[in-house]
Amino acid sequence: MRRGKTFVISGPSGVGKSTVLKALLEGREDLYFSVSATTRDPRPGEVDGVHYHFIDADTFRQMIADGQFLEYAEYVGNFYGTPRKYVEEAMAQGKDAVLDIEIVGAGNVKRQMPEAVRVFIAPPSWKELERRLVERGTDSEEKIAKRLLRAKVEFQAAHDYDYFVINDTVEGAVQELNAILTAEHCRPTERMEIING
Amino acid sequence: MRRGKTFVISGPSGVGKSTVLKALLEGREDLYFSVSATTRDPRPGEVDGVHYHFIDADTFRQMIADGQFLEYAEYVGNFYGTPRKYVEEAMAQGKDAVLDIEIVGAGNVKRQMPEAVRVFIAPPSWKELERRLVERGTDSEEKIAKRLLRAKVEFQAAHDYDYFVINDTVEGAVQELNAILTAEHCRPTERMEIING
Repeated sequence: MRRGKTFVISGPSGVGKSTVLKALLEGREDLYFSVSATTRDPRPGEVDGVHYHFIDADTFRQMIADGQFLEYAEYVGNFYGTPRKYVEEAMAQGKDAVLDIEIVGAGNVKRQMPEAVRVFIAPPSWKELERRLVERGTDSEEKIAKRLLRAKVEFQAAHDYDYFVINDTVEGAVQELNAILTAEHCRPTERMEIING
Repeated sequence: MRRGKTFVISGPSGVGKSTVLKALLEGREDLYFSVSATTRDPRPGEVDGVHYHFIDADTFRQMIADGQFLEYAEYVGNFYGTPRKYVEEAMAQGKDAVLDIEIVGAGNVKRQMPEAVRVFIAPPSWKELERRLVERGTDSEEKIAKRLLRAKVEFQAAHDYDYFVINDTVEGAVQELNAILTAEHCRPTERMEIING
């Protein structure tokens, strides 16, 4: 049985990454969507192991010390991290692991797992990203300008990503992601058995 | 408009490469299948510009001198080569160029055009390749043994190829090839306009 691969997906705020990932993952038993661990309290409706793995700060610190995170970060007093264990288990079962992680965390995953593939979800244009942020109607003009600037910085930081998927339509973006998943399984390292057989 | 890319396809005798390429190219206006130039005489039914570009030896030699070939070789007294011109024209029109070239020629293309992507069509197993060569019924046992040995040598020489597509079923191989074409257009170099935009 073929082993799964890890795909780290990043993208600026407002690009529609969550919608694309939801559409990609729907009904896909061959994909594992990584669930983060966190030290923050569950919010109403959040289920342990589904939305997050809820763990206490001592456990989190011990897991850091034991190298059990592919990446982790502190955010407003709470820790968030990607446990290595579930990703490894999924890959061993032949599933591709999909990780939704911002750029700095994605870089940490890449250092720990050099064979991980990084994909950046990009808008068709900056104009379109601005339009989407405005349309969402949740942010002030000032906040939108800030998000756009942050998106440009992220874009520059993502120059060493493996792929850029354009979210023009959700279907188009999902098609590109699926093509990347398929193509990456055609890499020579994935087919050594036949090459050497 | 996006620029096309060049994909060089190699594969051992008997693997079913021609069938796969025919299925890939059928009805695809967005793909250009490279036609070789040759100094040999046309055989009955062969059409200039379709099966080969038939040119005389002096023209061929001049084209070599002018760097007009992506690769060329001599085979039983005749020259065969891949004219750079048509490939470049197709890419400028946004078409992906598909080149059917054996390993040594593919290496020459890669040296002249480092951005070219090389794909090796592989059998699901050596046993299966042998079965296909036997089933074809055109070769003696000795010739089949020779072809198998040559295939193994080619496999080793193809270790630096970008992708290995398994021809288990024609549909599966075509799906993998299409995924590779799509994924390669998601490379950062292909999306600089958005990254820098």
